Amino acid sequence: MWADLAPVGRGTDGGYHRFSWAGADTDARAWFVQEAKARGLEVRTDRNGNLWAWWGGPGPGAVATGSHLDSVPSGGPFDGPLGVVSALAAVDELRRRGVRPARPLAVVVFVEEEGGRFGVPCLGSRLATGGISPERARSLTDADGLTWSKAMEGAGLDPEGIGADPDTLGLLDVFVELHVEQGRALEDTPHAVAVASTIWPHGRWRIDFTGRADHAGTTRLVDRDDPMLPFAHTVLAAREAAVAHDARATVAKTLVTPNGTNAIPSLVRAWLDARAADETALEAVVVQVRGAAERAAREHGVGVEMVTESRTPLVGFAEALRDRLGAVIAGGGPAVPVLPTGAGHDAGVLAAHVPTAMLYVRNPTGVSHSPHEWARPDDCHAGVIALADVLTDLLTGEGAR
Amino acid sequence: MWADLAPVGRGTDGGYHRFSWAGADTDARAWFVQEAKARGLEVRTDRNGNLWAWWGGPGPGAVATGSHLDSVPSGGPFDGPLGVVSALAAVDELRRRGVRPARPLAVVVFVEEEGGRFGVPCLGSRLATGGISPERARSLTDADGLTWSKAMEGAGLDPEGIGADPDTLGLLDVFVELHVEQGRALEDTPHAVAVASTIWPHGRWRIDFTGRADHAGTTRLVDRDDPMLPFAHTVLAAREAAVAHDARATVAKTLVTPNGTNAIPSLVRAWLDARAADETALEAVVVQVRGAAERAAREHGVGVEMVTESRTPLVGFAEALRDRLGAVIAGGGPAVPVLPTGAGHDAGVLAAHVPTAMLYVRNPTGVSHSPHEWARPDDCHAGVIALADVLTDLLTGEGAR
Repeated sequence: MWADLAPVGRGTDGGYHRFSWAGADTDARAWFVQEAKARGLEVRTDRNGNLWAWWGGPGPGAVATGSHLDSVPSGGPFDGPLGVVSALAAVDELRRRGVRPARPLAVVVFVEEEGGRFGVPCLGSRLATGGISPERARSLTDADGLTWSKAMEGAGLDPEGIGADPDTLGLLDVFVELHVEQGRALEDTPHAVAVASTIWPHGRWRIDFTGRADHAGTTRLVDRDDPMLPFAHTVLAAREAAVAHDARATVAKTLVTPNGTNAIPSLVRAWLDARAADETALEAVVVQVRGAAERAAREHGVGVEMVTESRTPLVGFAEALRDRLGAVIAGGGPAVPVLPTGAGHDAGVLAAHVPTAMLYVRNPTGVSHSPHEWARPDDCHAGVIALADVLTDLLTGEGAR
Repeated sequence: MWADLAPVGRGTDGGYHRFSWAGADTDARAWFVQEAKARGLEVRTDRNGNLWAWWGGPGPGAVATGSHLDSVPSGGPFDGPLGVVSALAAVDELRRRGVRPARPLAVVVFVEEEGGRFGVPCLGSRLATGGISPERARSLTDADGLTWSKAMEGAGLDPEGIGADPDTLGLLDVFVELHVEQGRALEDTPHAVAVASTIWPHGRWRIDFTGRADHAGTTRLVDRDDPMLPFAHTVLAAREAAVAHDARATVAKTLVTPNGTNAIPSLVRAWLDARAADETALEAVVVQVRGAAERAAREHGVGVEMVTESRTPLVGFAEALRDRLGAVIAGGGPAVPVLPTGAGHDAGVLAAHVPTAMLYVRNPTGVSHSPHEWARPDDCHAGVIALADVLTDLLTGEGAR
């Protein structure tokens, strides 16, 4: 399976560029449909464009597993696809074992998990759970100004039908997402697989610094309203705030207008990604960055506006389910590690609506969202076996009751 | 003339986007050819793509005037086009006066003056004077990776023929460029027009900060090699260096890779524009910025490389010519102001090869490289009259000897 999927959307830098509804994402989705049909699974596209491949046909009391196929710009090969490939491989493993499911199993591919094109992460699961209004989703735009609505139409789907999807989610009794570890907590342990405890509260904020375009060679320093300067202060303030609150705060994306060497910018737009172990710390980080941005903007005669683009509260995965999965995976051996994460996932969005769990597969470097993201083949295989064990339990054993 | 030219390449922000060899620039060049032919001028394209409209046909001992039609991204209406429109209007004025030139007059449009597409400013005049090698020019790329060579071919011209052009430049006895003032030195005086003394030494440097892409939500702060942080330090250091040396230093353009909200960048590329009253001050600015960039990069585990993209020494315009032009424009009235500038021009490139002068037309706000760039109609008219007076003198009077 990897052999077919690996080249899809891979750039010259070795990184993946799979953006929702665009070429590589379409190819990856087509790959999924083909692999699912080859296994006799029935593929349905839900009203929001998420793909569901059913073993036993759609029905109530279902077990679902899966992840996403889109990537950040120049992302790694595993973030997303590992959960999808492992789910399909687990179906093969279940059949090899002769498992006869007592209830339906669905393999799901959520759309726009990274927010790499339209800015709001986990958009497919947020829409399905009613976590974002259809109106707002339809009007989200990509870097070229194309709306979600138009992009979805371009893929042959009807954007008028998007929104909360209780008909589909109501079928699920449990959702399990397998994902490559993002961090290196497992590398110094004998464990290839861990289960998730929590997802840190996190969010994205857009900050617009509005100055006045002018000639960079002739304009006196005192006559300038240069938005690049408060932007730079804010980048450094974000790091300081992260240190102060034992959190994460990153400015990794910016758009400069007009972005000419000798033209003082009229606008510098920046995005802050911030995450912390609890809501109090996260709020403190955001307040500190906002204060620094406003002070620096005032000092340089520049306007500033900070808008929340997305905010996700602390997610605690279902404890009983997590303990049961951990026990199944351990199989009487040493207890499986339980890890928190700073990364958002569709599983985090679904957790408020469906009993949900996550499995992490060991990442030897901890690097992710990068062409250097990696997981060892042995560990990927261990992930498939762990997922198959968990699904066997949920579909036929104690976990099915 | 303005009515036809004004809409060409104007964006929704009111700013102009005229990049060499692309649509709007092609339209503006076609406009020039049409206006020149309507005046009975003979239009020639030189080996580098610069346009020459000859009154009296090409010949030795010629007087040339003109400027450029390309713009910075979101530039103003006057930077460049004012010199071209005024030159054509001055031809009309000379004819109205019944002036019969004793030697040829050429109106010239230089290509890629702003470096807005291929990064090197005054490329058309640099090529003509041998200030840049044909090999380097051919391999310059725009933001999409398209070479100067391919772009020139696309415009129907032969990039193999570019390079030093003594045949054309050898015809010129004098070059006069009229330009909108970039600064507001004239606003509080009764003068609509000034003559140029010097162009500050200036240059462009590209600075690459090379880090390691990783997940912005999960990577511990101590594990990061985030190039955005030394970039931010360098932006602030540039301003400090400019203050310290009474100079200009600006970071106005940057490209972030991959530029995703939740992906720590692998590369932040920045451009420094620096200018100062003398070479010593300029060198001090560059050394100070380089030192700050290297220190900050080291602190954050990031690689840094700083490359000179262009550097132009101090230009002093021909003093006798400048004094003569000033006297002609003053016409016995108060002495015409003599102004230095921080902005580069084709006139600055030609000055080392041909006796060259510049006229500045008053700018009430001093703003340029911006949609808000402005000159009053009365002042523009005064500019045409001053240019016509100067050309009359150079073509037929004392200045022609």
